[in-house]
Amino acid sequence: MAVKTMEDLFLHGIQDIYYAEKQITQALPKMAKAVGKGDLAEAFEEHVKETRKQIDRLEKVFANCKQKAKGTECPAIDGMIKEAEEIMEETEDDDVLSAALLAGAQTVEHYEIARYGTLCEWAQELGYDDSAKLLKETLAEEKNTDKKLTMLAEKEVNRRAAAS
Amino acid sequence: MAVKTMEDLFLHGIQDIYYAEKQITQALPKMAKAVGKGDLAEAFEEHVKETRKQIDRLEKVFANCKQKAKGTECPAIDGMIKEAEEIMEETEDDDVLSAALLAGAQTVEHYEIARYGTLCEWAQELGYDDSAKLLKETLAEEKNTDKKLTMLAEKEVNRRAAAS
Repeated sequence: MAVKTMEDLFLHGIQDIYYAEKQITQALPKMAKAVGKGDLAEAFEEHVKETRKQIDRLEKVFANCKQKAKGTECPAIDGMIKEAEEIMEETEDDDVLSAALLAGAQTVEHYEIARYGTLCEWAQELGYDDSAKLLKETLAEEKNTDKKLTMLAEKEVNRRAAAS
Repeated sequence: MAVKTMEDLFLHGIQDIYYAEKQITQALPKMAKAVGKGDLAEAFEEHVKETRKQIDRLEKVFANCKQKAKGTECPAIDGMIKEAEEIMEETEDDDVLSAALLAGAQTVEHYEIARYGTLCEWAQELGYDDSAKLLKETLAEEKNTDKKLTMLAEKEVNRRAAAS
């Protein structure tokens, strides 16, 4: 699509993250399965549920813009998921794999924190107050997920991987 | 490479971000050129210089591990740079393009914040104290760059794009 105005750019941004969230709902269950049972698998599974709610919110944002919800290719998220898939193939030790996938999940969270942070600001600038509120809710959730993953890394996952 | 131990995973992580930093030094000058003169172009150019220092630090980390500095393909950064290139082609208004590229730069910063955050923790866990210190310096710089970009977005770039 040709981007001529800030409204176009906002719509492009929503389509980008809508595609990304859909890819994440497919990738996370595979990552949860790969790390087996335990706190990290539970964290991944919990975040799948959260991601579905975030997709619902994005659909409301599309509706607020009087646009049909649709995704646009997002090479960044495709790249991050490809990295996670490669590390699953290359890593032979289960504990080291957990540390690698936790780190991969944090790159995804940070991508989302950057994107939702920007989309919140753009929505506010455009006077899309209802959409800004919805995007802010998701931003807070993504920051919270990243914090939880950091705690999990520090408390157990990295230590176990270094000891294995 | 086959990843068997946490030491292997750390080395893989260093190679990933080394490749990413090298790609960034090539992408940022093009982004600076695309946004013309002004605070954003200066911020991009300043960050190129900072990135070169960060590459030097990574080379010290490789040396600490008694390894030759080399990169490994990083599809995530390739994806983010591809997104920036696509938006440069698709965006017709200069002010809107500035807002788009600033946002793109923030996804790169957040990728780096996630990766360096993880690498610091892994280095500490492995007892690589000198490397942990070097990585921490870079992490602080990346966080600072992200903050500067947010301020620039809020203070001028987004406002100008919304008004154009």
